Amino acid sequence: MSRYDVLCIGNAIVDIIARCDDAFIDDNNIIKGAMNLIDADRAELLYARMGPAIEASGGSAGNTAAGIASFGGRSAYFGKVAEDQLGKIYSHDIRAQGVHFATPPLAGPPPTARSMIFVTPDGERSMNTYLGACVELGPEDIEQDVVADAKVTYFEGYLWDPPRAKDAIRQCAEIAHAHGREMSMTLSDPFCVDRYRDEFLDLMRSGTIDIVFSNADEVKSLYQTDDFEAATAQLGRDCKLAAVTRSEHGSVVVRGEERVEVQAIHVDEVVDTTGAGDLYAAGFLHGYAKDQPLDVCGKLGSLAAGLVIQQIGPRPLLSLKDAAHEAGLA
Amino acid sequence: MSRYDVLCIGNAIVDIIARCDDAFIDDNNIIKGAMNLIDADRAELLYARMGPAIEASGGSAGNTAAGIASFGGRSAYFGKVAEDQLGKIYSHDIRAQGVHFATPPLAGPPPTARSMIFVTPDGERSMNTYLGACVELGPEDIEQDVVADAKVTYFEGYLWDPPRAKDAIRQCAEIAHAHGREMSMTLSDPFCVDRYRDEFLDLMRSGTIDIVFSNADEVKSLYQTDDFEAATAQLGRDCKLAAVTRSEHGSVVVRGEERVEVQAIHVDEVVDTTGAGDLYAAGFLHGYAKDQPLDVCGKLGSLAAGLVIQQIGPRPLLSLKDAAHEAGLA
Repeated sequence: MSRYDVLCIGNAIVDIIARCDDAFIDDNNIIKGAMNLIDADRAELLYARMGPAIEASGGSAGNTAAGIASFGGRSAYFGKVAEDQLGKIYSHDIRAQGVHFATPPLAGPPPTARSMIFVTPDGERSMNTYLGACVELGPEDIEQDVVADAKVTYFEGYLWDPPRAKDAIRQCAEIAHAHGREMSMTLSDPFCVDRYRDEFLDLMRSGTIDIVFSNADEVKSLYQTDDFEAATAQLGRDCKLAAVTRSEHGSVVVRGEERVEVQAIHVDEVVDTTGAGDLYAAGFLHGYAKDQPLDVCGKLGSLAAGLVIQQIGPRPLLSLKDAAHEAGLA
Repeated sequence: MSRYDVLCIGNAIVDIIARCDDAFIDDNNIIKGAMNLIDADRAELLYARMGPAIEASGGSAGNTAAGIASFGGRSAYFGKVAEDQLGKIYSHDIRAQGVHFATPPLAGPPPTARSMIFVTPDGERSMNTYLGACVELGPEDIEQDVVADAKVTYFEGYLWDPPRAKDAIRQCAEIAHAHGREMSMTLSDPFCVDRYRDEFLDLMRSGTIDIVFSNADEVKSLYQTDDFEAATAQLGRDCKLAAVTRSEHGSVVVRGEERVEVQAIHVDEVVDTTGAGDLYAAGFLHGYAKDQPLDVCGKLGSLAAGLVIQQIGPRPLLSLKDAAHEAGLA
């Protein structure tokens, strides 16, 4: 037994979400579809140009933790907010979803992180992230008993952007593996892969990471190839288990020589793709922690991802437990 | 000519919106469908019990100002936020919509106002409002040139809750009338009417207010009767022009002996009624300021109200100008 199915670790970010047209993305030199890291000055500038917005708790691994809890799973979260209004909102939302969250907030500046997310008419999201208090996440924030008592510890590749979070992750991997647990990561973003390619490959090949989540762009960036099949096969060799998402074409799960193809669910209209990958990981890991076969894990991932892209915001507004039940997956 | 079509004055509030079931409303002694005024302690308590939420700028008259701007009208807003993160979000959103907003924020505590809005499965919203910085709005916040240069100055009856806002409103009325402008108010909420019935009636009968917005519950509360027709007729005698909304039954506009009935638009599903009355007033006043006939004013109100209740949050996420064009109303 374990207290937690999945512990998620990531940058704790409040999303500020507005619609815009494609010209806005071009005019402001935003890389469309990507996570653009920005500093405080650029955050001010972009916010001044942004239309009326709504706010919602986000952060990639935070969304995954919330998704697992929405499925009825037991999840925990490590992430750094500041002691400010956005930090209180973030802490409220993740705890109210039933996620264990006890990382001490940062007393002083910088403030809680925010990402300005511009959603274009095609539903694609382009993120502009000011990391704020996230830069202070470090090994001192590790709750060792939680790591030891979680079946899987999952983190986002984005954690390689702040300076000391990677040290925390390496400590977690030692604790987790010493307790017979597994480590998992998402590659997060093709540009993030480009920044940390060698380190990510080393995490896999050294056995620090067991399970990897990726989308098609990320796995191709990882191996610097346009050949999706070759890249996915290589990913399967570089870690114990990998799930690679392909938007409306579903996902491919590889474990050694085993390969499972999973379909995407039918989507009426893509409203906002924010959180798609995070919720795929939530569904997959929820099933995985419950010892479901890989195809069911993948279907749970498809379900959660397909639902979250039909709404605004990165965390499902409805119960994923109910949705899984209706879909015959629980 | 005038610089502004409509100046709106109200409590500047950030909405914190979550779904709940009817049992939650009962268990927490919330008056369903009403604006429940709460203090800081109760705000803490309710927030601790609230599920994961999203945040959006709100405030009744703020929503009206944003709605008028979304129609392409020229609107201004007076309202008090604090110099905190929620205050910055509020200021951003209303300015980004194109509304003139220059009320100085409050430096110290209390913080920016927030309303915890619980949306039940029927789409009804129950608001729990902590007024925070709103209690500091006073005559010193009046931009006299803006009042003088707005065709209509509109305010919410809720402004009778904080201590000094009513003094500001009375000053505005003097300035507006001295410049040949009109004053308008919404009765806001049946319990608010109950708190300030005599003062509201005096505002109308003294000619301080020219145009009144109400819903069926409010007008019946005003005259302490269950007879909608009698109450509406009396409202028509007590002010120069009144519009009374009746949810899915549309609205009735009365001006002296003139009476215009306006249908509601077809609504597929009521998602969240927050902002319905505010957006009716936005559509009506936008038409009124453009010298449209009363039936067109009412139809613009119905359109805006009907659209906002089909989404989460109190301000329309799409362009009301485009919607009016599609509906043949612009």
